[in-house]
Amino acid sequence: MRCDLVAVGTELLLGQIVDSNSAWIGEQLAAIGIATNVHVKVGDNVARIEGVVRQRLAEADAVIVCGGLGPTHDDLTREAIAAVMGGVALVLDESVAHVIAELFAARGRPMSENNLRQAMVPVGATVIPQRRGTAPGLICPITVDGTAKVIFAVPGVPMEMREMVTRAVLPELLARAGEHEVIRSRVLKVWGESESGLNARLDDVIERLDVAGDPTLAFLARGWNGLEIRLTSRRPDAAAAEAAIAPWEAEIRERLGIVVFGSDDDSMESVVLDLLRQRRWSLGLAESLTAGLTSARLAGISGASDVLRGAVVSYASEVKFDLLGVPDGPVISEAAALAMADGARRVLDADVGVALTGVAGPRTQEDQPVGTVCLAVTGPDIRRATTLRLGDSDRQQIREMSVINALDLLRRALLP
Amino acid sequence: MRCDLVAVGTELLLGQIVDSNSAWIGEQLAAIGIATNVHVKVGDNVARIEGVVRQRLAEADAVIVCGGLGPTHDDLTREAIAAVMGGVALVLDESVAHVIAELFAARGRPMSENNLRQAMVPVGATVIPQRRGTAPGLICPITVDGTAKVIFAVPGVPMEMREMVTRAVLPELLARAGEHEVIRSRVLKVWGESESGLNARLDDVIERLDVAGDPTLAFLARGWNGLEIRLTSRRPDAAAAEAAIAPWEAEIRERLGIVVFGSDDDSMESVVLDLLRQRRWSLGLAESLTAGLTSARLAGISGASDVLRGAVVSYASEVKFDLLGVPDGPVISEAAALAMADGARRVLDADVGVALTGVAGPRTQEDQPVGTVCLAVTGPDIRRATTLRLGDSDRQQIREMSVINALDLLRRALLP
Repeated sequence: MRCDLVAVGTELLLGQIVDSNSAWIGEQLAAIGIATNVHVKVGDNVARIEGVVRQRLAEADAVIVCGGLGPTHDDLTREAIAAVMGGVALVLDESVAHVIAELFAARGRPMSENNLRQAMVPVGATVIPQRRGTAPGLICPITVDGTAKVIFAVPGVPMEMREMVTRAVLPELLARAGEHEVIRSRVLKVWGESESGLNARLDDVIERLDVAGDPTLAFLARGWNGLEIRLTSRRPDAAAAEAAIAPWEAEIRERLGIVVFGSDDDSMESVVLDLLRQRRWSLGLAESLTAGLTSARLAGISGASDVLRGAVVSYASEVKFDLLGVPDGPVISEAAALAMADGARRVLDADVGVALTGVAGPRTQEDQPVGTVCLAVTGPDIRRATTLRLGDSDRQQIREMSVINALDLLRRALLP
Repeated sequence: MRCDLVAVGTELLLGQIVDSNSAWIGEQLAAIGIATNVHVKVGDNVARIEGVVRQRLAEADAVIVCGGLGPTHDDLTREAIAAVMGGVALVLDESVAHVIAELFAARGRPMSENNLRQAMVPVGATVIPQRRGTAPGLICPITVDGTAKVIFAVPGVPMEMREMVTRAVLPELLARAGEHEVIRSRVLKVWGESESGLNARLDDVIERLDVAGDPTLAFLARGWNGLEIRLTSRRPDAAAAEAAIAPWEAEIRERLGIVVFGSDDDSMESVVLDLLRQRRWSLGLAESLTAGLTSARLAGISGASDVLRGAVVSYASEVKFDLLGVPDGPVISEAAALAMADGARRVLDADVGVALTGVAGPRTQEDQPVGTVCLAVTGPDIRRATTLRLGDSDRQQIREMSVINALDLLRRALLP
């Protein structure tokens, strides 16, 4: 089973929007073992959409068309698919039209006639009912040179697209592949080990998984969000898939120990906030080179205010000395980082303090090379510091690596 | 002249990397008036790369292939292009091999034999010499059904790709289009006016530009980086293109006034840092809902330390009262924002203070709806505050809009 993708929108070609939808769909297809070999972006032009869909359909068993389902005159995916299906007519689907009309009524807005464009369905196609937004998706069976194939149409708005692909497109693809199986994945989040290091430590596990064939294992590097290990199983039902994953997950967790910081929807920031919440400890930060990036990242989690008191960004050295009470001496040092963490606890009246100080570049500082970063965590019975050598990479990367490492130092300090 | 794109790399299909290269190239092509109708992503597979390049070449006059030029066995763009060119041989280009060998020698690293793969050139192709990295680009002329066309190959590393496209590919495309002209652009950065508002205010200017034909004008929305107005001119030489843009730029600046905050490489943060630097004023921030995002964004500019003293992130209300000295009362108010800005000046010993307080959601606070944000700027002779109603959008968007609006309030307060 091979499924190619077509993303529709002139704004994608002009670089006004980067197409991240097809990357996301590609990842989902790979996770369930469906090949995806060619992804295409095309503008809002019926003939060209028709052309690329035909080309994809000549090679693949299925094509997902993403975008161009809106109400305006340059939303042309419906027309293009009707043409590919052999010039079938577009007819109004009364139930879809009803849902759209109700949505406008509920919002108290008048519905202009062009919104009913979204209720037009090529003859022979099935509607994927909308749950978000107003555009329904389409499942369009088609025979190409005697072979049964299928075109899916989903909206281009990422939230709507993701919901519809997960709910309707992936299961339909699996069913058409003759797979009456359910897919379950477990993602383990890792920090403190490189991809090649993980490969080496899991060498024999990977070999045994290869022999077993299911579950499959994949690594994904996510920058300052850590590394992901994804276990995926296809079984007749969800319980069997979950049971197939469980012993492997347990073995990998056992093998890797502390570097596994969470799973699935966990993030490093949600994990440290939970650990602090369990102890009823509040957090204060002292940030120098990162200048608020750690604090802003924690505050990105809804509910962070239970735990996060605030931060002092001591970009100027005088702020370190005067406000945080760092003693005179080099500010790129573990001693200074520890004093900054203590200062943050005192000034912000927090139980735990985390501090970051270092050289983001482009120039060296206190004779320390670019990429030298000192981190500290202090609190009741906690006093930890470490020095990173992140090398002469770019400013933003040094800052991001500092943030994830500081949060990880905090996590390790909080583990029982 | 139409130029399509092919991005090569299995990691693009699997969603491990989002293809932002073709968006960037698409933007450059549009700016110089070359059509680009279809962009394709394909995996590391010779036959499939060959297939999609042939398909693109059947429709377009030129194709840029991006990626797959590295030294490893899955870098297959050279082989695929040689096949498209009719199965021509790949031969070692001695001068490219020499440059690669020298680069390794300069870094004191041994060069493995496979690095010479990068010096293999299809017979009939011209090399685009490498300036960064080690992979040269290729210009491959080819005749398709009697029509002279061209394939370009450029590296997938964004920095290398951008340099090579700008230096060699765009000029070659223009020359092949029979254009012996030079392209110049001027980008005006705008905040404080919507795209439709700009359209209305520039209505007659846009009409006169349409009639004149050159320069062209385009709008681009860049989220919390503001809106861009791009003027592009094609003339026989650079001086003529710049002279063609100048009077239109002057007219647009005159018309729009204060909402134009900069041009070309300026960002809102670089502009406010420059304005502060001119007055020799230092800056301190007090951030609540944004939790350090404003500070981190300013510190992203190299040299910010001249100006930025630091920030107090007062996520907990007590930090506002105790550290920043905000008087008792509602903290989502202009009065509280002004007191926070004064507190930041005092605590951080800064000339100018900027404060942000508001409701990022998901819950209302002090009976204020989600999206209510109060901003303030205080300093010598400066005392400004404003309230935004950003509506019930997502947490991150409310925070980002707060940051750009706070920086813009500061900018307006600093203008002579």
